Amino acid sequence: MNIILFDKSDYYQNENSIRLSDYRFNHISSVLKSKKNNILKTGLINGNMGTGKVLEITDRYIDLSIELDKRPPSPLPLTILLAMPRPKILKRTLKHITVLGIKTIYLINSFRVEKSYWQTPGLKQAAVRKVFLNALEQACDTVLPELHIEPLFKPFVEDRLPEIIQNTVPVVAHPKNGKSNILTYGRHVTLAIGPEGGFIPYEINKLKECGFEEFKFGERILPVETAVPSLIPVLIQ
Amino acid sequence: MNIILFDKSDYYQNENSIRLSDYRFNHISSVLKSKKNNILKTGLINGNMGTGKVLEITDRYIDLSIELDKRPPSPLPLTILLAMPRPKILKRTLKHITVLGIKTIYLINSFRVEKSYWQTPGLKQAAVRKVFLNALEQACDTVLPELHIEPLFKPFVEDRLPEIIQNTVPVVAHPKNGKSNILTYGRHVTLAIGPEGGFIPYEINKLKECGFEEFKFGERILPVETAVPSLIPVLIQ
Repeated sequence: MNIILFDKSDYYQNENSIRLSDYRFNHISSVLKSKKNNILKTGLINGNMGTGKVLEITDRYIDLSIELDKRPPSPLPLTILLAMPRPKILKRTLKHITVLGIKTIYLINSFRVEKSYWQTPGLKQAAVRKVFLNALEQACDTVLPELHIEPLFKPFVEDRLPEIIQNTVPVVAHPKNGKSNILTYGRHVTLAIGPEGGFIPYEINKLKECGFEEFKFGERILPVETAVPSLIPVLIQ
Repeated sequence: MNIILFDKSDYYQNENSIRLSDYRFNHISSVLKSKKNNILKTGLINGNMGTGKVLEITDRYIDLSIELDKRPPSPLPLTILLAMPRPKILKRTLKHITVLGIKTIYLINSFRVEKSYWQTPGLKQAAVRKVFLNALEQACDTVLPELHIEPLFKPFVEDRLPEIIQNTVPVVAHPKNGKSNILTYGRHVTLAIGPEGGFIPYEINKLKECGFEEFKFGERILPVETAVPSLIPVLIQ
């Protein structure tokens, strides 16, 4: 945990101090072993970052006086469309996406996505929020990504996607064909990543009709949890 | 599993056929549901890739006739020095490294590496080989990476490193300082990645004395398992 994140429900007495008694308290007292007057990095969820000075620490809670004078790091100029992965991979991949600084995620369907994946408790709002917060606490960022769940491929691509990719460079990762070099010149990118086994030709064609270009990195077949962090920095360079 | 890998111990009767009865047999019979005369992608570990034609499939084994006429994909021009991560992260990170196509890995020590990490059974030869094979089977590659275990920082950096980085561009990932753009012009890169919390200043200085340049990607602090796949493709572009 490289930053202590809080929201308005943590305010104590006024908006300049917070009281924490949950996992953040445990981290501050047991891992950081902070004492009175120590200064910690803090951030308001979806707001500014700054410092928290330890006012009081007991065996049940900690009070911090807050000063937030710094904006969080800029979002990465990339929107990701991710074919719904296996639940275990979903969690790790959402973490990669969040620590890298991406703020808009669409989980989409594909022929090779098993229907049961959509039932995972990992998609519940509280579970997703926990993954996002954990990643922001690692990355030193405050801004929660927005996760859109789109379990129908065709209506999503036909009705929603044209608007999403407007003014962006739309790219689909495709290990079989694809250019190995797409220059995006700092423009916002929309990156689509298929399921294990890849998008089927029908899906690739639908994306291409919509304006997507195929992109591949190297000659190897990357699993989703490697493809996501590998391709993002390359495309926004 | 995108390729069936085997070694000489799998030869059956002659060097043109193999008999499999372990996890590969289970995969071929239960997941791929292959039948007689089906053609599978195969590869000799550390050798060529090609096809395997199903000669016979029973409920205990499968025999394949092998033809290997294709070289495996070229290695990525990058050597990685990785501060020994937590055992769980080690496994995932070795997988990222292998699927990306890196063939030389040094696990090194750092002040912030917990001594106990070096005792993990995950470093045993059989465990490492299993992770590598699993990654090669995903990536469609045959060449096992070489893993060097270097549990002493100073002698490694002073005595071994100058030779390792010869004719390469040596780069250390460092989120605090560091250039955000290092052009390597297709030359072989040596990339050092520190532990959670980063290398300490003494270690950074030792690496800089040796010729390393600091590199950072973005303003966020990336965990090792994201930093590794994020930085590699950027540096070899």
